[in-house]
Amino acid sequence: MSESTKYLLDEEHLPKAWYNLAADLEAPAPPVNPGTGQPMGPDDLTRLFATGVVEQEMSTERWIDIPQPVREVYRLWRPSPLIRARRLEKALDTPARIFFKYEGVSPAGSHKPNSAIAQAFYNQQDGVKRLVTETGAGQWGSSLAFAGDLFDLDVRVYMVKISFNQKPYRRALMETYGATCIASPSSETAAGRAILEANPDSNGSLGIAISEAVEIAASRDDTKYALGSVMNHVCLHQTIIGEEAMMQMEMADADPDIVIGCVGGGSNFAGLAFPYMREKLKGKAVRCIGVEPTSCPTLTKGAVAYDFGDTGKLTPLVRMHTLGSGFMPPGTHAGGLRYHGMAPMVSLAMEKGLMEARSYQQTECFAAAVTFARNEGIVPAPESSHAIKAVMDEALRCKAEGKADTILFNLSGHGHFDMQAYTDYFGGKMTDTPFDQAALDASLATLPKVAV
Amino acid sequence: MSESTKYLLDEEHLPKAWYNLAADLEAPAPPVNPGTGQPMGPDDLTRLFATGVVEQEMSTERWIDIPQPVREVYRLWRPSPLIRARRLEKALDTPARIFFKYEGVSPAGSHKPNSAIAQAFYNQQDGVKRLVTETGAGQWGSSLAFAGDLFDLDVRVYMVKISFNQKPYRRALMETYGATCIASPSSETAAGRAILEANPDSNGSLGIAISEAVEIAASRDDTKYALGSVMNHVCLHQTIIGEEAMMQMEMADADPDIVIGCVGGGSNFAGLAFPYMREKLKGKAVRCIGVEPTSCPTLTKGAVAYDFGDTGKLTPLVRMHTLGSGFMPPGTHAGGLRYHGMAPMVSLAMEKGLMEARSYQQTECFAAAVTFARNEGIVPAPESSHAIKAVMDEALRCKAEGKADTILFNLSGHGHFDMQAYTDYFGGKMTDTPFDQAALDASLATLPKVAV
Repeated sequence: MSESTKYLLDEEHLPKAWYNLAADLEAPAPPVNPGTGQPMGPDDLTRLFATGVVEQEMSTERWIDIPQPVREVYRLWRPSPLIRARRLEKALDTPARIFFKYEGVSPAGSHKPNSAIAQAFYNQQDGVKRLVTETGAGQWGSSLAFAGDLFDLDVRVYMVKISFNQKPYRRALMETYGATCIASPSSETAAGRAILEANPDSNGSLGIAISEAVEIAASRDDTKYALGSVMNHVCLHQTIIGEEAMMQMEMADADPDIVIGCVGGGSNFAGLAFPYMREKLKGKAVRCIGVEPTSCPTLTKGAVAYDFGDTGKLTPLVRMHTLGSGFMPPGTHAGGLRYHGMAPMVSLAMEKGLMEARSYQQTECFAAAVTFARNEGIVPAPESSHAIKAVMDEALRCKAEGKADTILFNLSGHGHFDMQAYTDYFGGKMTDTPFDQAALDASLATLPKVAV
Repeated sequence: MSESTKYLLDEEHLPKAWYNLAADLEAPAPPVNPGTGQPMGPDDLTRLFATGVVEQEMSTERWIDIPQPVREVYRLWRPSPLIRARRLEKALDTPARIFFKYEGVSPAGSHKPNSAIAQAFYNQQDGVKRLVTETGAGQWGSSLAFAGDLFDLDVRVYMVKISFNQKPYRRALMETYGATCIASPSSETAAGRAILEANPDSNGSLGIAISEAVEIAASRDDTKYALGSVMNHVCLHQTIIGEEAMMQMEMADADPDIVIGCVGGGSNFAGLAFPYMREKLKGKAVRCIGVEPTSCPTLTKGAVAYDFGDTGKLTPLVRMHTLGSGFMPPGTHAGGLRYHGMAPMVSLAMEKGLMEARSYQQTECFAAAVTFARNEGIVPAPESSHAIKAVMDEALRCKAEGKADTILFNLSGHGHFDMQAYTDYFGGKMTDTPFDQAALDASLATLPKVAV
C-alpha cells in the first residue's frame, strides 16, 4: 500500500475514450413521444440536440473516442487528482482506507464541465451558433458558459429567478465566461410571458426554465439545447472520472470495496461508478452506493415509470426512477440534488442490482462536510456532502466490525459558491423537513400511463 | 520544448527546505523600537511571535528545513501545478511562452496557507494555545483558520468591520475551519473600545484590527500573533512556490526570461521570485517584475524608510519601501494589495537592482483577468489580475519585437470569493482613481525619523 496522499496522472494518461455501460448492461429503453406514445428515434431528438450527442444517446458501443479538441480542453485541469483522506481516517479512528476523486479542480468548480465541453464541441461540429440551457443553483450554467466560450458558441442560460436574485455570484461567473444569464420566467419566451401574465412576481422553477430554454432551441435553426445530467450521453461523458480513478487506485496499490457518489440527476455518480460496474458485471466484488437527500428520495422511494423530464411536461417521456414530474421537494441547500427523476442508466443499474441507494437529511450531511473540511481542508459543495456522510458511516461501520475496507468516493465539487449554506448551518438556521409520503403518493398517482 | 499543458510534481518532490534570500543578498536591517530608536533582537519579538518564527526572521542561513509535520500538510495540495497558458498565448498571437504557477489549488484558495501552516506549527511547538490575527479581505484570516484547525490552535481573527459585513462568505469559511471571526473594532480590546467610544459606527480599518490582535497577543501568555505577509519569515515560507516552479520549468524544458508577481505586502512575489534572484546573483539573465496597483504604488512611488507596519503606530519600525503608515489608498477590489509598506526583503531586492516594479489601474487588470478566464478557465483573484496584466503587456511586447521570451508568473489565488468585483466590473461600476501625489507627499512628510 502506497504512503502517498495524492495520486496524480500526467496528461499523457488522460483517457482516450468514454465508457458506455449500455454495452455491458443493456440498451436503455428509448424515450417516448408523450403525444403519440411511440418510441422516439434520433431524428426526433436532433431538433433539440447536436447529432454527435444524439448518436451517443442511442449508442451501445462500449468505448466512444473522446475527440482530440475535447481532450485538449480537459487538459486544462484533467486528470483530476485522486486523494487519500488520511486525516479523516485518523479522525474517525477507522481501519478503512478512504480515497476520493476531486472534481472541484475544474475551472467551474465541479464535474459539470466534463459534459459541457463535450456537448459544446459536438454542437460546434454541427455548425450550431448558440446553446441554451437552464440552471438552478448555477453549477451547470457556469460550466456550459465556460464550454461555450471555448468553442465559440453564444450561451444563454435561463436561471430560476429566485436563484438569479439570491446567487448573484454564480451569475457573475457565467458572465465572466461571456454567457448571458436571464432570470426565468422572462418575457423572451411565450412560456415565460404566460407565467408572468398569470403571476408577475413568480420566483420561477426549474420546470419553467427548461420550458423557456427548450422553446428557444426549438424555434431557431442555429440554436440547440444542452442538458447537464440525466441523459445517457451526459453519464457517458462523466465516465472519464472513473476511468482515471481506476488508473490512480492502481498507483495507490488499492482497489475499492465500496464506490460512493451523491445522486441528483445521477451523472457524477455514474461517472465514477459505471466503470466499476463494468468490472462488477465481470465478477468483481464492489458495492456501489448512490446517496440522495431524504427530501428528494428518487431512488429510495420513487417508482420506475415513464415520466416527463420537466415540471412543465414538455420533454419526451423517459423510463426512470421518478417521484413524479409534479413532485416539489422542499427547498434545501443541495440544489443539484432537487430533481424528481434519475438518469435512466442509473435507474437500470439499480433495477439490475448493480448498486444500492440511501438517503440522508441535510443537517447531518453538513455536519459531515464540516468534519471533512476540518481534516482535509477542502470545503465540499452541499451536494457532495451527501456522499461524505455515507463514506463516514461506512468507515464507522468498518471500525465497529474491525474491517479495513477501501472506500472510494466522488467529491464532485467545492463549496466556495455555497458559503451561505454553511452560514445557515452554523447559525442554526438549517432545518430538516420530514418526508411527506402523502405528497409523494399524490404525485405518483398522476404519472403518465406508459407500459414500462 | 515539451508539448504538455500542465507540469505536475508528485509529493516525493515536495521541496525539503525553504530558501532564504538573506544568505545571498545581505541580512535585512533589524526592526527598530519606536520608543528607544534601538534595534530589536529576538527577545523583543518573541513576546508576539513563536521562537521558531523569530529565528527565521533573523536568519542568514541559506536553506531552512521544512519540518516534517508542515510537509505532511503541504501534501494536501502541494506541489501546486505549473501550467502553460497555451490558449492565452494563441489569443494574444504572441511568440512568447507563458507559464504560471497556480496557488489557487490550496483549500483556502490562495498562496497564504504556505506560511499559515508553518506559523501554526511553530506556535504549537512553543505550547501556544491561541493565535490572533487581523484580516482585511479575508484571504489570510481563512488560511490561518485552516492552519490553526490542523495544529489544534484556537484562532481568533479580527476582521475589518466593513469587510465583515460585506464579505460574509470569507467569514463563513473561517468558521467552517473552526475559527472565531470578530468584527473590528470590537469591545474585546481597549483599542477597540476606544474607537467605538469615539465613533460607535466605525467601519474599522486594517490598522485598528492589527492593534486589537496585537493587544490580545501581548496580554496573554498562551496567545501569539501571526502576520500573513511583509515579514522575512513569511517570504521565506512562500519560497516553496519558486523552488517547485524551478523543477517544473525544467520538466517543461523551459527557463524563464521574466518572472512576474503582484505585490501587496510582497510575499507571493517573493515566493516565486526569490529563488530566481538567487540564480540572478550567480549571473543568470532573468528579469523579476513586481506589479502593484496605481492607487497604492509602494515600490514605484514610495520612499525607503523606517516606518510602522500599521496605521495605529503600535508595531516596531521596519526599513522598507513605504507610502507612510497613515497613507490611505482608495477602496479597490484588490484588498490584498492595499498596504502602505513592502516586505523589507523585497525592498532590498529592489534597491539592489534585482527586480523592477510597475503599476496598473484596476479596470485594466480586470479586463486582463477576463481575457485570462475566457482562455484558461481559471477566474483570477483581483490581486493576481495585476500580475496577469503585466504578463499580457510583456507578451504583446514580445509580439511587437518578434521575440519568443519565456514568461513565468504566480497566479496567487482564484477569484471565487471575489465575484462581486467582477459583477461591478461588468456592471460598469468599477472606477479608477487618479493617484493623489499631494496626499502621498503629506504622508511621507510624517515618516518617523530613523536613519536608514
